[in-house]
Amino acid sequence: MSMLSKSRRLRPTPFSQGVEAQGVKAYTVYNRMLLPTVFESVEADYRHLKDHVQVWDVSVERQVELVGPDAFRLMRRLTPRNLANMQDDQCYYVPIVDQYGGMLNDPVAIKHRDDRWWISIADSDLLFWVKGLALGEGLDVKVFEPDVSPLAVQGPKASELMARVFGDQVRDIRFFRHKRLTFKDTSFVVARSGYSKQGGYEIYLEDSSYGMALWDALFDAGADLNVRPGCPNLIERIEGGLLSYGNDMTMENSPLECGLGRFCNAAEGTYYIGKEALEAEIASGPKQQIRAISIAGDAVTPPAAAWPLMKDGVRVGQVTSAAWSPDFQTNVAIGMVEADHWDAGTVLDVETSEGIRKAEVQDGFWL
Amino acid sequence: MSMLSKSRRLRPTPFSQGVEAQGVKAYTVYNRMLLPTVFESVEADYRHLKDHVQVWDVSVERQVELVGPDAFRLMRRLTPRNLANMQDDQCYYVPIVDQYGGMLNDPVAIKHRDDRWWISIADSDLLFWVKGLALGEGLDVKVFEPDVSPLAVQGPKASELMARVFGDQVRDIRFFRHKRLTFKDTSFVVARSGYSKQGGYEIYLEDSSYGMALWDALFDAGADLNVRPGCPNLIERIEGGLLSYGNDMTMENSPLECGLGRFCNAAEGTYYIGKEALEAEIASGPKQQIRAISIAGDAVTPPAAAWPLMKDGVRVGQVTSAAWSPDFQTNVAIGMVEADHWDAGTVLDVETSEGIRKAEVQDGFWL
Repeated sequence: MSMLSKSRRLRPTPFSQGVEAQGVKAYTVYNRMLLPTVFESVEADYRHLKDHVQVWDVSVERQVELVGPDAFRLMRRLTPRNLANMQDDQCYYVPIVDQYGGMLNDPVAIKHRDDRWWISIADSDLLFWVKGLALGEGLDVKVFEPDVSPLAVQGPKASELMARVFGDQVRDIRFFRHKRLTFKDTSFVVARSGYSKQGGYEIYLEDSSYGMALWDALFDAGADLNVRPGCPNLIERIEGGLLSYGNDMTMENSPLECGLGRFCNAAEGTYYIGKEALEAEIASGPKQQIRAISIAGDAVTPPAAAWPLMKDGVRVGQVTSAAWSPDFQTNVAIGMVEADHWDAGTVLDVETSEGIRKAEVQDGFWL
Repeated sequence: MSMLSKSRRLRPTPFSQGVEAQGVKAYTVYNRMLLPTVFESVEADYRHLKDHVQVWDVSVERQVELVGPDAFRLMRRLTPRNLANMQDDQCYYVPIVDQYGGMLNDPVAIKHRDDRWWISIADSDLLFWVKGLALGEGLDVKVFEPDVSPLAVQGPKASELMARVFGDQVRDIRFFRHKRLTFKDTSFVVARSGYSKQGGYEIYLEDSSYGMALWDALFDAGADLNVRPGCPNLIERIEGGLLSYGNDMTMENSPLECGLGRFCNAAEGTYYIGKEALEAEIASGPKQQIRAISIAGDAVTPPAAAWPLMKDGVRVGQVTSAAWSPDFQTNVAIGMVEADHWDAGTVLDVETSEGIRKAEVQDGFWL
C-alpha cells in the first residue's frame, strides 16, 4: 500500500462522512472517486460479508442517464446484448464494445422506460463514449451524469435489514429486477443486485443530500444484525468469478475473451457497434479466455500488475487478480489463458511478484 | 492522507521502478495511473524545483493519437481554438468542450502533420469522446492510445541537463515547439513545455521498454546539478495559475469561466462542437470566472473538496486549490468567483475545512 493525496478531483461521495467515521482503512480510486477497499482487514471483512450484512458505498458506480426519443435506439447501438425483451423493471449486465470489439466498460443497464435508461458503470468514462456517439450520430437523446449514487446492502442478512428500512416488499424483488420504494419524503430505485455472491440489493440514492440519512437508517435498523460498513471484497469476488474492468479485462479484450459470449446475442438485423468484429470472432472462436486459476503455496500478495503465466518458458497468459481464500484454503485467481492451455487441470507456472508458483486452471469459480 | 490499495487497474508507468526506488512518499491517481505527489515534502520539493532541476514521471498525461485523412478535420471539430496557422512542430493548449460548452478536458495538442496528432490529456477519458465522435460522424481516422509516456524535466537547470543527454540543440527549441531527438538507438519527440513556470521540457517516451534507460540517463548526467525526482507541485502550480482539470474546473464550467477565452478563437466558418453555446456566452459574458485568491492567516490544509466563498452569508463562489506559499508568505489559492465579486481587492469569507478565513481576490497570479 502507498499513501494517497486527496484533492477535489478525487471526488468524495454522499456517504463519505459515514465511511470515514466508521474507520475506513484504505481506498482505491474508481471513476475519479474514492472507493473503500478495507475496513477491518480484507480477511475479516470477507468473513463478516459471508456471515452477516454490510453496507457498501459504491457511489463510484456512476450513472450515465439517457433520456429522449432515441434513448432505446442508442442503447441498442451500444451493446451486443439483445434488449428486445427487457422489461421496464429489469437490470441487464451489458458488455459495451468499440468497433473493434474491445471492451470499453461492463456496466449494468437499468431500464426505466424505452426512453429513459441508466447505465451503472465500471471504471472508465463511459459518459464520454455515449455522449460522443449520440452527438456524432445526431440522435435525439440527452446524455448526462445525474446526481445518483448507489449504496449496496450485501450479505445473507441483507433482505432482513432492507425489509426493516423499506418494508417487506423488498423481499418480492427478483434478481436483477428493481422497484421504486419510499424513503422518508422521497423514493429510491432499489434493485436486487450487487458486486458479491452473498445476495443483496443496490439502492440508487437520488439527491446526495439524503445520503447520510439513508446510511444512518440502515445502521440504526441493523444493530442487532451485526451490520457493518464494507466494500467489494477482493477474495469474495475472485471466488465468485466477478470480473473487474481494468484488472481482469481492458480495451484490449473482447467480450468472448472475457467469457461474456452469452451476452453477445443481439437480435437478427440489429446493428450494434462492434458487430463485424464480434461475429468474426464468434466464427473463429476466441484465442484466449478468462479462467479460474488456483495458485499453489502460501498466501500471495495480490498483484499490482499482470503476472505472466508460462508454459515451458513461453508466455501463454496472465493472472490479473489473486488472493488467499480462507474458505477454500488456496490462492484463488482470475487469469486470461490461451486456448491451447485453458482446459481444466492444466498446470502452468505463474510469475508472481514474489517468485514462480504452480498455477492450475480450474473448471469453474469457487461457488 | 489515506492509504491507497494498489491493483493492476491503477496502472504503473515505464518509470515506476525509478520513482519507487527514489523514495516517492505519496501518489494520486490520474487517468487510472499512479502520479507521484510528494518526494521529500511538498514544501521541500517546491524549493528544489525553483532552485535546481527535477525529473517528473508524468506518464499520466496519456496520449490520444489521431491518424488518417480526417485527423485535422476531427481536431477542428474538437476545439474552439483556431488551428489554421499551427505548424508541424507546434504544441497548442486546446480547451475541449461538449455541445453545451462544458469543459471535457484541457489538453495540449501536439501536431506532427495534418494527418497525425497527439492530444496529451488531463484527467478524463478523452479517448472515449474522440473515438465516439469519430465513429458517430463516420470520419476516416484511427483514434487510439499509443505506448507514449511523457517524462518532464523542469526547473532552472533543465536546459543544461537536457543538453547533456540530448545535445545542445535542445536549447534551440522554442516554447511550445517540439523536435525529434536521438536517444541511444531510437528517438523521442522533445517539447519545450511542462506543468510548472520554472521552464523545462517534456520528453514523449515512445516504447515503454526504454523508460528506465531514459530515467537513468537523466539522473546520471545531472548528479552535479542536484537533479532529483519531482512531480507537479501544488504550491508552485497555484502560484503560477496552472489550472487542474477536476480540481479547478469540471464539465460544469465553460472555457470562458476558466479564463480561457483567448483560446476560443476558431476561424470564421469553422464548425466546432459547442460553437453556439460559446458564442452565446461570449456575447453575454461569463457569470463567474477563475481568480487568484489569497487566504489570510496561517498555512491552510489543502482542500479535498470545494470551499464555499461567501459574501454576507450568500455563496458567491468557491476555492478549489489552496496551499501555503513560502515565497509569498500567504496562502495562495485558485477559485471561481461570480461577476459581482471578482474584482481585485474584493474581500470575501472562505469556509475552509478548519474554519472561516478572509479571502482576497487578486489582480493576477504570483509570477
